[in-house]
Amino acid sequence: MDISALKAKNPDHWTRACAIRALTLDAVTAANSGHSGMPIGMADVATVLYAKHLKFDAKNPKWADRDRFILSAGHGSMLLYSLLYLAGDPQITLDEVKNFRQWGARTAGHPENFHADAIETTTGPLGQGIATAVGFAMGEEILRARFGKKVVDHHTYVIAGDGCLMEGVSQEAITLAGRYALGKLVVFWDNNGITIDGKVELSDKTDQVTRFRSAGWEVIEIDGHDPEAIDAAITAAKKSAQPTMIACKTHIALGHAAQDTSKGHGALTNAEQNTAAKQNWGWAYGPFEVPAEVKSWWEEVGSRGAADRAEWEERFAALSDSRQKDFTRQQDGDAPKKLSAVIRALKKQISEEGPKVATRKSSEMVLEVVNPIMPETVGGSADLTGSNNTKTGDLGVFDVDSRKGRYVYWGIREHGMAAAMNGMALHGGLRPYGGTFMAFTDYARPAMRLAALMQIPTVFVMTHDSIGLGEDGPTHQPVEHLAISRATPNTLVFRPADTVETAEAWEVALTQKGTPSVLSLTRQNLPTVRREHKTNNLTSKGAYVLAEAEGKRQAILIATGSEVEIALAARDALQAEGIGTRVVSMPCMELFAQQDEAYRKRVLPAGPVRVGVEAATRHGGWDRWLLGERGREAKQDFVGMDSFGASAPAEVLYEKFGITAQNVVAKVKALL
Amino acid sequence: MDISALKAKNPDHWTRACAIRALTLDAVTAANSGHSGMPIGMADVATVLYAKHLKFDAKNPKWADRDRFILSAGHGSMLLYSLLYLAGDPQITLDEVKNFRQWGARTAGHPENFHADAIETTTGPLGQGIATAVGFAMGEEILRARFGKKVVDHHTYVIAGDGCLMEGVSQEAITLAGRYALGKLVVFWDNNGITIDGKVELSDKTDQVTRFRSAGWEVIEIDGHDPEAIDAAITAAKKSAQPTMIACKTHIALGHAAQDTSKGHGALTNAEQNTAAKQNWGWAYGPFEVPAEVKSWWEEVGSRGAADRAEWEERFAALSDSRQKDFTRQQDGDAPKKLSAVIRALKKQISEEGPKVATRKSSEMVLEVVNPIMPETVGGSADLTGSNNTKTGDLGVFDVDSRKGRYVYWGIREHGMAAAMNGMALHGGLRPYGGTFMAFTDYARPAMRLAALMQIPTVFVMTHDSIGLGEDGPTHQPVEHLAISRATPNTLVFRPADTVETAEAWEVALTQKGTPSVLSLTRQNLPTVRREHKTNNLTSKGAYVLAEAEGKRQAILIATGSEVEIALAARDALQAEGIGTRVVSMPCMELFAQQDEAYRKRVLPAGPVRVGVEAATRHGGWDRWLLGERGREAKQDFVGMDSFGASAPAEVLYEKFGITAQNVVAKVKALL
Repeated sequence: MDISALKAKNPDHWTRACAIRALTLDAVTAANSGHSGMPIGMADVATVLYAKHLKFDAKNPKWADRDRFILSAGHGSMLLYSLLYLAGDPQITLDEVKNFRQWGARTAGHPENFHADAIETTTGPLGQGIATAVGFAMGEEILRARFGKKVVDHHTYVIAGDGCLMEGVSQEAITLAGRYALGKLVVFWDNNGITIDGKVELSDKTDQVTRFRSAGWEVIEIDGHDPEAIDAAITAAKKSAQPTMIACKTHIALGHAAQDTSKGHGALTNAEQNTAAKQNWGWAYGPFEVPAEVKSWWEEVGSRGAADRAEWEERFAALSDSRQKDFTRQQDGDAPKKLSAVIRALKKQISEEGPKVATRKSSEMVLEVVNPIMPETVGGSADLTGSNNTKTGDLGVFDVDSRKGRYVYWGIREHGMAAAMNGMALHGGLRPYGGTFMAFTDYARPAMRLAALMQIPTVFVMTHDSIGLGEDGPTHQPVEHLAISRATPNTLVFRPADTVETAEAWEVALTQKGTPSVLSLTRQNLPTVRREHKTNNLTSKGAYVLAEAEGKRQAILIATGSEVEIALAARDALQAEGIGTRVVSMPCMELFAQQDEAYRKRVLPAGPVRVGVEAATRHGGWDRWLLGERGREAKQDFVGMDSFGASAPAEVLYEKFGITAQNVVAKVKALL
Repeated sequence: MDISALKAKNPDHWTRACAIRALTLDAVTAANSGHSGMPIGMADVATVLYAKHLKFDAKNPKWADRDRFILSAGHGSMLLYSLLYLAGDPQITLDEVKNFRQWGARTAGHPENFHADAIETTTGPLGQGIATAVGFAMGEEILRARFGKKVVDHHTYVIAGDGCLMEGVSQEAITLAGRYALGKLVVFWDNNGITIDGKVELSDKTDQVTRFRSAGWEVIEIDGHDPEAIDAAITAAKKSAQPTMIACKTHIALGHAAQDTSKGHGALTNAEQNTAAKQNWGWAYGPFEVPAEVKSWWEEVGSRGAADRAEWEERFAALSDSRQKDFTRQQDGDAPKKLSAVIRALKKQISEEGPKVATRKSSEMVLEVVNPIMPETVGGSADLTGSNNTKTGDLGVFDVDSRKGRYVYWGIREHGMAAAMNGMALHGGLRPYGGTFMAFTDYARPAMRLAALMQIPTVFVMTHDSIGLGEDGPTHQPVEHLAISRATPNTLVFRPADTVETAEAWEVALTQKGTPSVLSLTRQNLPTVRREHKTNNLTSKGAYVLAEAEGKRQAILIATGSEVEIALAARDALQAEGIGTRVVSMPCMELFAQQDEAYRKRVLPAGPVRVGVEAATRHGGWDRWLLGERGREAKQDFVGMDSFGASAPAEVLYEKFGITAQNVVAKVKALL
């Protein structure tokens, strides 16, 4: 392609954008891996966005009222790193750029939020960025409604590629954004017509413009290499009451031998071709070299927001002390001091009253006392509000004309919900939780994993957590989902046995800053097993002795959630036969594993036989506690599931699958 | 709503459709759970479809050339059970209908394919039906091209609700169907405007008509209670070269007090209201009673296809013997006899040559010899063809003008690919496999779980299976995904160490009839560790002794896949120090667990210390083999991952995360 017309028409812009292109070629070549074509193709869009529109202060990347920029096409990470380096971000230095994709560098293969303050979210798994951005934009709406335009008033910009738009989660995202009229969300579609396997049309002929309009979006179609068109489109998008998709016709790897080919998508490391590309661009500088006047122009761009920020600081200072404190506490993710008192009071009341309720209902009881003192919580459900018990009286409903509402009807979009919740958590100022059936962990998985990787405290309220769900059958009955979440690093999985443990689990979840929580909650009613009030949060220890053996301790039953009741019944039967039996409730294996060895040994001493009870597969981390951490501790067995469930009433299923006190007793006796 | 006009206009149709409505009310009432509203709302559509269009022979539900009917909105299962019972399906008897949602009944809460021949696929997790249907329709195209219209020529009909269409996977499905012009796919959208949480507009305002058109579909909008309009729409849809969506405006729970409300979605069990509904419908019969003339009309519908089928049998008999045999073998899912010889020959050659290749490449080498002798295989990749190595020379590409092509460019749609592969497997006659990066198991999970539950042998080719992927970083590096698939019942997870084991793994996978397989394959090159040719398939044992200890056996190293090389290097170092060390390769834990105890004990005798090595979390079933199945067998340790990975070259990552022979040696010595 002859790019001389582009150069000639806007020579200054061209050179500034080419700094991104050249840095990309150099960094990918140095790493001998990465994706060159996208940053080269989208350099014009990014340059205009940063230069003329994006509200940011490069030296203060965490300024609360900055615009958010999300690179959903995360493989094009060098676009982001180039922008940050050029604009003077203190963390993304030239050395970091040179260390692209190396151990310890902030410039990882895909943008990872925990490596640099200016990286808003982790992307790479396609579609996640655009879906997470919905939560950013929703969060902005909620906080603007609450704190006012003077303090919260910013846009969320996204660059998405064809891969993002082909992933199903993008449909969930764009229909949510359209439904909730997230007018401050702007998505640039890098319409380069290329995927890894070849041309987009090889696998897709979707009319994206019509598709976005069908979801209620404004769409503007432009030449993605025309800076004036880009500028005009962004200006128009900012005025729209609906979210805007700017379809940018671009050339992947513009001006390179690999332009407009799938080869251009990947690592362009051929020295000769790269030299030719730079010549073609008119870029006459050495590797990683950016001429001073170009760099200083970019640094001016990076400091353009400093004045905005200073004004914002003044406006913020004009808020009342308590408003400032609230805002700061919520931004920092600190739980209110009152939280533990409120939880303790509820525990006390529950221990006294001893209600028999499903833990999904227990969760609602907790939320009823927590939501009023934590205005940062945002609840929701993927169309199972009445089943997940996630909506409390005071929340209000988030909608186009009620932006203060703190409850989101997510529709039947578990994946979009999970990703958007992550976006709210990343945005700051909000603490999202959302519900679905636990079996649909499967749908939400990509975003649940990202929550763990991104170190954010999203709370996943997963109800109907076993065959106890009953008649809906095996498609709706989780058996491996505790294992899935427990196998995921940096994830707390809680399976509380009653309302007291549910309250304790929520307390731990709501005080996390860097770890997501999964609450595994029952459909069926459970008795209160914690009838003696303890001020301490026993769940925070992961496991504890719920009932001590009487007489010689011959057996330890370890159970979670709904099976604690079964373990207690089995203990009664065993004790009646003179077999001293301890019951350990283990609501959170991860927290128990974090306790010191002395505590773990106290709870699970070597010697007595051990039987675990959980209506799920043994794969959920059980071997460690049953076989013994040191491998020589106890004879053991497990009562649980080793197949999918079935459709029948819950009590029938527990009986048929042998998850009964009788069976636990039999197993213990067989081991003695 | 006044339904008298509906009754008056088509009284016979009305009564026949009301048989579905009444059976639904009765079955849900008896079960005291279920979903009444959808079958009541869609009874008219289903009646016209079955009566006038659906090609089926109720007494021969497995007739290969039947039309497929897929209830994507699986919660409305009583619609399907009513139709099957009424039409005279031999398995769905009145007793089964009366036992709706009870233990042992074929009439599970959601339709489950393994309970009755006429249930084409398992639905319930929303969106799965429509996505699976894409595979059914694609399979029909491929087989029609191969065997001719006289033998294969049928439609795939789907009923989908708003839930199905809100799930992201539906977007992947409809864009695939549009791209590949699956003209024989017809989707009825039950446009009743209601979800569980309330009106659809509470969470969604998508213009579905425009959306489907943007994906290349024909769309016809009708009144879903007008039998003539339904008939005309189906007639038009059957003529379309593109897939057709028939938007059926319906009333959920038509004629019941709960009509047009979210209450109507669930179980309608109020006796008074149900009596009133039946009166309103003009249905004057007792519970589960269907008047003889209505039942016999339905049975005529059910036998209408018998003549078609008989003619088809004649046409089929006119095929050459070898064509008949091929067709039947492929429909039965039997592997060709030649398969094991071909695999053995490849193993022999590899053991002799000892190439150093990535197992993703090994997989391609296997497919190069397998695909030519198994015309039933259909390969594909979610836009990672060159990385997954799933395309072999002879497959051809499936496209609008090349229906015989056996390779599908699925685009960036892991979930849609997995579901459509399931559809091909369920359709019969095809054996699908498809690739993506293993970390994107997360995207495909809902369909992978269903493959296991549905007992179908879909093969998931998951490459780049550890930190060995390198620079793309932790978003692309699986650490918990072996655990996820291993925790899933009825799933074989293979992690072969070299080309020989890869060939053995494929042989096992390709001979499965009721179990899906996950192949965990490396990006990085691995040496051939099996240099001595064995005709037996050692991988089919799950684990075996790869290298025996010399001298006194003090240690056993257990490893999988890319870490077998590390275990062998550690063994060399330990043996050099006089520490007798056995190496066990464990390519498939599930198969090893299925061996008898004597074999397991021979491979893993009590006594020697054990160290496991796998570049993944220990949660992947390791404790059982390390701590000892009986809990008192060995001192043990594990070398693997306990966090997410990072972005850096693969060899650096192995070093930094300590997955090295040196570290294995150190662990062994610490235990001795």
